Amino acid sequence: MFERLRQASAAQKEKIRLKLLLEACDRLLTEAGESISQRLASEALALYQDLTADSRLSFFLALAERFNPDVAAVRKLSARYAASADPDDLMALIDKAEPPRQELFRRLNQVPHGCAVLIGLRMDLLSHLKKHPILRLVDADLQHLLSSWFNPGFLSLESLNWQSPAGLLEKIIAHEAVHEIDGWGDLRRRLEPDRRLFAYFHPALPNEPLIFVEVALLVEMPEAIAPLLDRKRPIEGDPKQVKVAAFYSISNCQPGLKGVHLGNFLIKRVAESLKKEFPSLKTFCTLSPIPGLVGWLASDTPLPTEPFTSKAHSSLEKLRTEWSARVAGQQNSLASLLSLAEQPGQSEAIGRLAGAYLKATPRLDDRLSDPVARFHLNNGARLERVNALANLSPKGIRQSLGAMVNYLYDLDQIEPNHEAFVAGEVTASSSVSKSFKG
Amino acid sequence: MFERLRQASAAQKEKIRLKLLLEACDRLLTEAGESISQRLASEALALYQDLTADSRLSFFLALAERFNPDVAAVRKLSARYAASADPDDLMALIDKAEPPRQELFRRLNQVPHGCAVLIGLRMDLLSHLKKHPILRLVDADLQHLLSSWFNPGFLSLESLNWQSPAGLLEKIIAHEAVHEIDGWGDLRRRLEPDRRLFAYFHPALPNEPLIFVEVALLVEMPEAIAPLLDRKRPIEGDPKQVKVAAFYSISNCQPGLKGVHLGNFLIKRVAESLKKEFPSLKTFCTLSPIPGLVGWLASDTPLPTEPFTSKAHSSLEKLRTEWSARVAGQQNSLASLLSLAEQPGQSEAIGRLAGAYLKATPRLDDRLSDPVARFHLNNGARLERVNALANLSPKGIRQSLGAMVNYLYDLDQIEPNHEAFVAGEVTASSSVSKSFKG
Amino acid sequence: MFERLRQASAAQKEKIRLKLLLEACDRLLTEAGESISQRLASEALALYQDLTADSRLSFFLALAERFNPDVAAVRKLSARYAASADPDDLMALIDKAEPPRQELFRRLNQVPHGCAVLIGLRMDLLSHLKKHPILRLVDADLQHLLSSWFNPGFLSLESLNWQSPAGLLEKIIAHEAVHEIDGWGDLRRRLEPDRRLFAYFHPALPNEPLIFVEVALLVEMPEAIAPLLDRKRPIEGDPKQVKVAAFYSISNCQPGLKGVHLGNFLIKRVAESLKKEFPSLKTFCTLSPIPGLVGWLASDTPLPTEPFTSKAHSSLEKLRTEWSARVAGQQNSLASLLSLAEQPGQSEAIGRLAGAYLKATPRLDDRLSDPVARFHLNNGARLERVNALANLSPKGIRQSLGAMVNYLYDLDQIEPNHEAFVAGEVTASSSVSKSFKG
Amino acid sequence: MFERLRQASAAQKEKIRLKLLLEACDRLLTEAGESISQRLASEALALYQDLTADSRLSFFLALAERFNPDVAAVRKLSARYAASADPDDLMALIDKAEPPRQELFRRLNQVPHGCAVLIGLRMDLLSHLKKHPILRLVDADLQHLLSSWFNPGFLSLESLNWQSPAGLLEKIIAHEAVHEIDGWGDLRRRLEPDRRLFAYFHPALPNEPLIFVEVALLVEMPEAIAPLLDRKRPIEGDPKQVKVAAFYSISNCQPGLKGVHLGNFLIKRVAESLKKEFPSLKTFCTLSPIPGLVGWLASDTPLPTEPFTSKAHSSLEKLRTEWSARVAGQQNSLASLLSLAEQPGQSEAIGRLAGAYLKATPRLDDRLSDPVARFHLNNGARLERVNALANLSPKGIRQSLGAMVNYLYDLDQIEPNHEAFVAGEVTASSSVSKSFKG
Repeated sequence: MFERLRQASAAQKEKIRLKLLLEACDRLLTEAGESISQRLASEALALYQDLTADSRLSFFLALAERFNPDVAAVRKLSARYAASADPDDLMALIDKAEPPRQELFRRLNQVPHGCAVLIGLRMDLLSHLKKHPILRLVDADLQHLLSSWFNPGFLSLESLNWQSPAGLLEKIIAHEAVHEIDGWGDLRRRLEPDRRLFAYFHPALPNEPLIFVEVALLVEMPEAIAPLLDRKRPIEGDPKQVKVAAFYSISNCQPGLKGVHLGNFLIKRVAESLKKEFPSLKTFCTLSPIPGLVGWLASDTPLPTEPFTSKAHSSLEKLRTEWSARVAGQQNSLASLLSLAEQPGQSEAIGRLAGAYLKATPRLDDRLSDPVARFHLNNGARLERVNALANLSPKGIRQSLGAMVNYLYDLDQIEPNHEAFVAGEVTASSSVSKSFKG
Repeated sequence: MFERLRQASAAQKEKIRLKLLLEACDRLLTEAGESISQRLASEALALYQDLTADSRLSFFLALAERFNPDVAAVRKLSARYAASADPDDLMALIDKAEPPRQELFRRLNQVPHGCAVLIGLRMDLLSHLKKHPILRLVDADLQHLLSSWFNPGFLSLESLNWQSPAGLLEKIIAHEAVHEIDGWGDLRRRLEPDRRLFAYFHPALPNEPLIFVEVALLVEMPEAIAPLLDRKRPIEGDPKQVKVAAFYSISNCQPGLKGVHLGNFLIKRVAESLKKEFPSLKTFCTLSPIPGLVGWLASDTPLPTEPFTSKAHSSLEKLRTEWSARVAGQQNSLASLLSLAEQPGQSEAIGRLAGAYLKATPRLDDRLSDPVARFHLNNGARLERVNALANLSPKGIRQSLGAMVNYLYDLDQIEPNHEAFVAGEVTASSSVSKSFKG
Repeated sequence: MFERLRQASAAQKEKIRLKLLLEACDRLLTEAGESISQRLASEALALYQDLTADSRLSFFLALAERFNPDVAAVRKLSARYAASADPDDLMALIDKAEPPRQELFRRLNQVPHGCAVLIGLRMDLLSHLKKHPILRLVDADLQHLLSSWFNPGFLSLESLNWQSPAGLLEKIIAHEAVHEIDGWGDLRRRLEPDRRLFAYFHPALPNEPLIFVEVALLVEMPEAIAPLLDRKRPIEGDPKQVKVAAFYSISNCQPGLKGVHLGNFLIKRVAESLKKEFPSLKTFCTLSPIPGLVGWLASDTPLPTEPFTSKAHSSLEKLRTEWSARVAGQQNSLASLLSLAEQPGQSEAIGRLAGAYLKATPRLDDRLSDPVARFHLNNGARLERVNALANLSPKGIRQSLGAMVNYLYDLDQIEPNHEAFVAGEVTASSSVSKSFKG
Repeated sequence: MFERLRQASAAQKEKIRLKLLLEACDRLLTEAGESISQRLASEALALYQDLTADSRLSFFLALAERFNPDVAAVRKLSARYAASADPDDLMALIDKAEPPRQELFRRLNQVPHGCAVLIGLRMDLLSHLKKHPILRLVDADLQHLLSSWFNPGFLSLESLNWQSPAGLLEKIIAHEAVHEIDGWGDLRRRLEPDRRLFAYFHPALPNEPLIFVEVALLVEMPEAIAPLLDRKRPIEGDPKQVKVAAFYSISNCQPGLKGVHLGNFLIKRVAESLKKEFPSLKTFCTLSPIPGLVGWLASDTPLPTEPFTSKAHSSLEKLRTEWSARVAGQQNSLASLLSLAEQPGQSEAIGRLAGAYLKATPRLDDRLSDPVARFHLNNGARLERVNALANLSPKGIRQSLGAMVNYLYDLDQIEPNHEAFVAGEVTASSSVSKSFKG
């Protein structure tokens, strides 16, 4: 099969590769013999990996055009079943309506490294979705299959530490997306006995963390990020004294698994695992950024009236207007924002504003609401405390005027909190609620 | 949720359990919160496991009635897409046509032991299919999902030996279905240095072999089973002398994975692994039963004319008629069949007949063709040698008048052999081919 | 080096082998090059393993004659040091006084399997000690080195269970010396969740248990062995309910490690490990045989007067005389002994007698005192309860008229109990003490 | 036991600790009970670790004074045995002559971490030997025991790579003594597929490498170190092409194991292991420094006349005199030495001189002979090639005017080469031999 390739001029090779790849895909769907099938899968994956970015796009477009269900047949079968109510007709209909692309991907997954290649393929694919909306057909199939394969029942939670393989820890350094890890010394501090780092793994990707969370074991709920990240911070001495497990960073490692829900389960399972190891733990919370705050202020969108009293609303709205002008105005340099935030009384104002913003987040549209808030509140966390001047890094100022937030995971209240959030309400601590008062 | 159960009289409990289970299934499909979802999955699985066999059937029937696609919507969407050719319409159609049951099973699989319970559930379900054909709707969904989850890319091949966990070896003893293992001493002989036992595992079932194959390393292709199973057989001394790897037993361990193809890949991967360990190996073959032979003889169905010459056909047909009478007649006691088989010239006759039967197997209908032959020939093996008087156990006599067969796996010929078989032809060695001559 | 061997007639080979072995030993002690040294060690070990039992004895006798310290030099050096007090003279003396045999054994141990061969060699050697007392010179060196190498700091304690390697469990079956394991089914009961089996391992013998102890987790201190060994005994349901860990069997696996203390540490470390796993455990005890009881009775040696009151002594002595006659007399068939033991009042009498015997054990001479009692009492256990009619197996009747004993390990009292024992006293529970009263 | 400590004033604590430690040592030797013995060992080790450096010295001096053999008794027993020839007398003599200190150390080793503490203790002890020669008595006992415990038969050879635990690799970075590892990036290059890093481990120190060797897989014998250490060096593509395994760095990690021979076995076992993994390997060699060269030149000690011809000797001696003046003179700055070494013809001269120095090394006194040469030549290596201008680092210039040497390990010639070296001869390649010619 590769013979044609070897003899081709360099210019033609790419074209031939793409053609061979599409032929291999066609044959994969028609061949019944499973050892042939495995060989075809291997060849197709190798051909794909050799393609240039342009040819990959051509391949994706071809995937979107071919391998769709035969809708005429679906139509006929649905009519027939409507008349017959015969289970055989229904089964035939179900079968016909599934895109052959799904079977194609399943067969590409027959070889041990298939799954890793498909995740890479989807990462490539995602970069084209905006410009080529038809590719959503392909993406829907991949996301569907990956969600089935990366079902939480198949994942294993592992605690990483300084005795973990260096090659694995290197990936942690590379993928930390919230609070960058500055080399091995920095990582090591995050793996000392008063810290934990948990990651999810899938058996098909044995040395690849899918998502990980970093936890600090503390005596009090943390109110700023810098002390936590300080490499020189002394190690919390007595593990029996720790009261608080603070989740201070969650990072996804596999862009090709976008939309496959992994993180939701992670926090609950980590909390349960920590509770067993440290019976003295009372509080499971996060120290989270508020990435949407400044964007919302700058957008000039007023605070929703609900769920605030009208007095509180007008007081908050006044604050919002002030800050809206500042962040959108001429003086929005980092230095001037920071200096404003540090003026007397302003940190309280930012705190109230941030609290109100998060409280209102289910009523804001997707573009303006805070994604981190949505993640934790939907997971069943409570809005516990807003911390002004908690992250004075440039990113912290730019995103949220330095404010951060603690979300609290009370394992017994996760379900009602989640249900409230689904109904549009944000459960908040009494201290946060008080801050909404006029 | 379990409160109602605790208070019920013993008589009502079963009814309540079933009701709760169906409610949990309904909620699983509607709840968005993932920690609720995991709790519901746990509860549903526990409720299912507590059901009696009768209630399980009721549950299956309910599954078959509910959770089907909304065919009216499918019909509407297929019409709309036919008109619009809009990918969004197509995606909506694909989505609507998938039975919600599949999503239900995926959600039940969210908890770590979910997969094992679902395999058990399918085993229960399979026992009702004949009497309740509508359950095929449920079974189709399960088989579809299990095939996706137990994709060969997710399986790992392991070589078991006397240092493997006792609990694992105990399962091998329990599941050996072809040549029963008579206790630990018997097993141990099958794990000596001149034997290999390979099994496939899935990460979600870490201590459960899915399928396993037993291999003897020999200097010659084996012609009878008894010497291989003899516990006192001396151990083949020098591993550098072995020329033949004989697959003498393949057993499935998971009835709930019926129809999920595992074995096809097993043989090829085992052969490759053995080739690496023992470079002196030249021949990979089986020593296989012919379970369909006597059934076919007794059925009185004549040998197909193809692919035999007419002379050969009439000669073979004559033989067949003779033996047909014997196996269907009054004197078909084990003793008389054995004594017939051992009469001078009769072993050759049985050999020819068995060879012809296997050669003709792709042209016989499913009920009469030999399942073991179909498995190996479809896998790309060659019909290498028929061995008369190779298995004189009662089962061997009853099934095949004592005959067994070697299928040969020539790794370079697997694809053409398979393709020939798909086209209705059986590749056979020249010596077997000769035996068809008149 | 092996050339001479290959050319020899069969009759001469043995002689040559022995000669070569002694030459290799000589060279091992003189060669400085370490890769030569390793080759010589390998060759010497192989030669030894090929020797017949007779030649091995010849080899041992040669080892005892050669490789002793140069006592004349020792004498000279000790005189010199007495005069000089020069540390160099002392070091030279120490060096000269160590038998070169020890260095020889250390060098034989240079190759990975050396240690295992030396343990086997010592087992062979031990069988000749009685007849050839000079071999104690060799044995003393081996025991000295093995004690250093099998120092408890180098041993690891492992808990074995049904997921342990079959090859390892097979050795447990083979070595159980107290209550024979009747095949895999019997073993499996002893590995159920209400049992534990701990073994010590040394890194140089990775698949060889050195010594193991079997533990039953119970709600009460056991008073008879048969219920514990009953394969049908229901599994203790709730691990949180267990109160008592009963050590019901301790077996050595390596006769070549005789005199190397392993067991003493085992019980304490196992108790600590169990305490961690089952915080509900209150009592750590044994259910032990009294192998010396009948031998002592039959010996006609009277009970020591100490530590009994004179009234108690005469009462006990009367009992002893009665039973002494019975066990030494004509009617000492198993059946008659059993029937006597079961007569009304006699079980109490045997209990009192056994308790008195154990209490007196530090004052009896080695031949008559009870070895199991000495082991546990020296380890710091307390004599807790004597159970008459506790082991009605033939061995149980023959050894101890069916009586068994619970020794209690109170982790806080181990040191004082041990010290009392060293001083000739046996710490006993009040109920046992009461039984000594007249 | 620690009660006295808790109540003491800070000033007295140290004195009490030392006293308690010596008491614990005394009791360790007299107590028979093994659980007491383990507790005492634990306490003694903890007390030792808490001592200041000064008190540790006091402890060592006390160890040297006490715990020596009773020489008077030894004298008496040696006289008795001379008269009696009774094995019992000999055993008593052997027993009496062993310093009780050895038994003390064995008992301290009873607890799992004992061995690690004793190795640390010896490291402390070694630093005092020069000033307090009497401590050699203690050191001799420790070295004796450690040599027995770290017998090569007990060591395991492991290949480390980028998947090894980070904590282990961190120790490799810390202990690399020959060519410093400059952080994780540098280490990573040394673990790429064309490199190997082997270390010896002892089971009692599971995460502590004892000694390690770094190997480069190459197509030619290397003639300079810089290209090997270059982090940007491309990875040798095809493992089937490698012909040469070059040992370019050997480092000891445990100063407390000084004098315990580990390295000698390492090279041979690594070579055997590599040969198995890469059958294409033909050459096992080192690229070694010549640390003694400049010291010898500066010492003004003439070249021995043997084994050179007189013509060669006078020519070499002339060279030596020239360079002797240079390295000892005023102009021995690094820059001027380097510039001299790089002048035309001088690199050949240095090569000849270095070769002659190494050839003569067994005839030079210990202070002047080259330790690296002695190590490899005694191990059976051959002097293969001298490389001038091979290491232009400051250390390389200072030690050897930039010259390095390849020692060749021909596995079949190790024994004769070693024997020649023991007899005072250095086996050299013909090209090196030629360089000695006038």
